[in-house]
Amino acid sequence: MLQLYFWPMACSLASRIALMEAGIEARYHMVHLWTKKVLDDDGDFRAVSPKGAVPVLVLENGERLTESAAVLQYIADLRPELGLAPPPGHPDRYRLQEWLSFIGTELHKGFLFPTFWYKDDAALAKPRERIGQNVAIVAAHLAGREYLVGERFSVADAHLAWALTLLRPAGVDVAQWPDLAGYLARMQARPQVKAAIGIETQLWKTVTA
Amino acid sequence: MLQLYFWPMACSLASRIALMEAGIEARYHMVHLWTKKVLDDDGDFRAVSPKGAVPVLVLENGERLTESAAVLQYIADLRPELGLAPPPGHPDRYRLQEWLSFIGTELHKGFLFPTFWYKDDAALAKPRERIGQNVAIVAAHLAGREYLVGERFSVADAHLAWALTLLRPAGVDVAQWPDLAGYLARMQARPQVKAAIGIETQLWKTVTA
Repeated sequence: MLQLYFWPMACSLASRIALMEAGIEARYHMVHLWTKKVLDDDGDFRAVSPKGAVPVLVLENGERLTESAAVLQYIADLRPELGLAPPPGHPDRYRLQEWLSFIGTELHKGFLFPTFWYKDDAALAKPRERIGQNVAIVAAHLAGREYLVGERFSVADAHLAWALTLLRPAGVDVAQWPDLAGYLARMQARPQVKAAIGIETQLWKTVTA
Repeated sequence: MLQLYFWPMACSLASRIALMEAGIEARYHMVHLWTKKVLDDDGDFRAVSPKGAVPVLVLENGERLTESAAVLQYIADLRPELGLAPPPGHPDRYRLQEWLSFIGTELHKGFLFPTFWYKDDAALAKPRERIGQNVAIVAAHLAGREYLVGERFSVADAHLAWALTLLRPAGVDVAQWPDLAGYLARMQARPQVKAAIGIETQLWKTVTA
């Protein structure tokens, strides 16, 4: 059985959404990202992955795969019949990779990561100046579209739904972009997305209680 | 013919290396990243790509693909016989995606980008604290390895060779990590990598003269 190391509401939530949308059962291990402890056995998370970052997906053969862009494509390809990623070699597959990269670099590493990790106004002034134009690019792309890539839900939507869910606590109100707000509401209404967010919202309350 | 929009020594250099290693001729358009002008015709780069970022690869059908992780995989897949990426579906393909993501998020967006774009000590204090541990992860992986993924040069090496080349002007001396310094010297000695860096070093001097 696949295993996913996660921290509630961190980017590993996108991998949980992908697993649930794919109908793949997995064992979930909660990690404390600040202390680098695996919470089920108080183990050292750096022994699981030297990066000390989530997601870490433990594959059936015991290998560990990290980085959302790779983990999400791996999960999608386990159930090709579901179309959670366009098939390898299809022109849309590069579009999926393009969006996974943009979400990972501009929305996550360029803004959400420093917001929640650095928590430092001096470090955040420049990222805050820049986030609006990056969100506007996503919003413009979504005008008149149901999904980020092609005509069906993909793991890029799982990634983006996570990032947009975090924008509000990071101080960015997506209601400024009606196409984006509409998209987020549609994504959050999907049963598996709603269930995944519900699970991690509850777990988040337990770790911050 | 493919066309690549680039800014000298920016991350688009990785795409130039990939094109040259693939033996693919392309038309190169230099962009001024600060003014968002295309230098060959003084055109508006935002009309080419609303992101205003490089690389932008114009495909044979006129579509524009952005984001190094996507552009590099696209280029590699044009010449599958060269093995510039493991074939789609091969376990190593996800390792390639994992490294492209790590380089794009941690080395580039988390450190090189703020260093050269924000140029602001307050914004840079936290990224500077963090870069060493991220570079050390790459160095540890490269101990005893010739290449980042598998047994041959891939577009992940093109991406990493670019990032490591920029670390020194960004204030990080890779000589601290002998495995990494050795890898970088090997990569920079490859004829196509050397030629690509040579071209962009010359162009960089013209734009900053």
